[in-house]
Amino acid sequence: MTTADRNSSGLTPHEARARFRDGLKVPTAGWCSGWTQANLIAVPRDLAYDMLLFAQRNPAPCPVLDATEPGETSSAIFDGDLRTDLPGYCVYERGQLVAEVDSVRDYWRDDLVAFLVGCSFTFEDALLEAGVPVRHIEAGTNVPMYRTSRPCRPAGRISGPLVVSMRPIPADLVATAVRVTSRYPAVHGAPVHVGDPKALGIRDIGRPDFGDPVQIRPGELPVFWACGVTPQAAVMQSRPPFAIGHAPGMMAVTDARDSSYLVP
Amino acid sequence: MTTADRNSSGLTPHEARARFRDGLKVPTAGWCSGWTQANLIAVPRDLAYDMLLFAQRNPAPCPVLDATEPGETSSAIFDGDLRTDLPGYCVYERGQLVAEVDSVRDYWRDDLVAFLVGCSFTFEDALLEAGVPVRHIEAGTNVPMYRTSRPCRPAGRISGPLVVSMRPIPADLVATAVRVTSRYPAVHGAPVHVGDPKALGIRDIGRPDFGDPVQIRPGELPVFWACGVTPQAAVMQSRPPFAIGHAPGMMAVTDARDSSYLVP
Repeated sequence: MTTADRNSSGLTPHEARARFRDGLKVPTAGWCSGWTQANLIAVPRDLAYDMLLFAQRNPAPCPVLDATEPGETSSAIFDGDLRTDLPGYCVYERGQLVAEVDSVRDYWRDDLVAFLVGCSFTFEDALLEAGVPVRHIEAGTNVPMYRTSRPCRPAGRISGPLVVSMRPIPADLVATAVRVTSRYPAVHGAPVHVGDPKALGIRDIGRPDFGDPVQIRPGELPVFWACGVTPQAAVMQSRPPFAIGHAPGMMAVTDARDSSYLVP
Repeated sequence: MTTADRNSSGLTPHEARARFRDGLKVPTAGWCSGWTQANLIAVPRDLAYDMLLFAQRNPAPCPVLDATEPGETSSAIFDGDLRTDLPGYCVYERGQLVAEVDSVRDYWRDDLVAFLVGCSFTFEDALLEAGVPVRHIEAGTNVPMYRTSRPCRPAGRISGPLVVSMRPIPADLVATAVRVTSRYPAVHGAPVHVGDPKALGIRDIGRPDFGDPVQIRPGELPVFWACGVTPQAAVMQSRPPFAIGHAPGMMAVTDARDSSYLVP
């Protein structure tokens, strides 16, 4: 998969959402430079507290940027329609993926509450500005994501593994990458792990569980950040009756500024 | 009210909780130096999502440090009994205070979920270390707290005003107070207002809504921080069937370290 538009980084969130609403289905890495992207997870009202508590107990992978009340389809940071304005969605029944579609208008229910969860794309501009390469943006592909062997702290009926995203970083820039991303604690913050993928239970770094593989060059280390796909992995493991998520890498482009999540 | 024990600052959380469990009813400012204190709000399961969403939408006054599942009476950061180990409690029915007691064992219900919300006492040691006086600790009284005219962002059935705590700060130390407290974003962080109380809708600074008044000396400005009593003010305004809170100023002394909420 590649992004369809060379100028996508200069679009406003409003413009990007219109393209996705019209059916464009692409990963959003690099889109709408400076605007915050978010993971989506929507569950029935009955599960809302468990899911919000799961997020609260696992703030590194699940930083909640905003949440809706039952029936709402927009949010204070998303002036669009959560059912149509993301490039892609995953629909789950009892933890099974039953549809991957570019609109969930036909699946949405009035009792759903939606969570917008911070995304590491938020700090990628800052990495690039600091001279740290971001391989999947260079390649125009989706960021590689992996289920780990680390369990999240459960909450009620929700449990699941930590999911991580990976970026290969030259050894002499690892410290810079840590320093830059530490300043964005609300969008996953500093890496959770540097180096050996096996320590996270990742057997084959060349075969991500979500997204696309990227090349790790000589002199580079794989660096892992907590990932907002974690709530979807929890849905797969916990098997609630119904849930909707974004398609991994195809995020909600919000009206919040990346800079608003930067700590001084 | 004055603290009963000159050595209270050197106690462990375990020791302090034992005294409160035995019936000691005092404000906890200055107790258990270095250990984090927290506000308590407990509501029925049915209201849990609304309350957690209210907190999520109003992170300055309502930073959730931990939350329980229905029926739990301890938490990952509170290795005691939430029903007995605080010095004082307020019990509300339909928003009315119906009891102020030193144990809620007779009031607790199995469907309650409890939220531990960050408290500005957490950064008071850091203020003192930076040479900023903390008047209510000097005086051995409870911190003054005020309802403001600023509404919080509502969530479901929960709405209410921002509540603030106030500390008088010498004009030349206001910047230091801002800088020091900014480093504790998870426990209210930087002040929400410096100076004129009327801008917050506070009519008489000498008559706080909760806690005790303190002297503001010549050359000092009143400085206001978001306060974790805000969820209780929301309970009073929103009138849910039942709720339990801590008595203002009489906090849950947790097993978390103040330093764990310090950002680098």
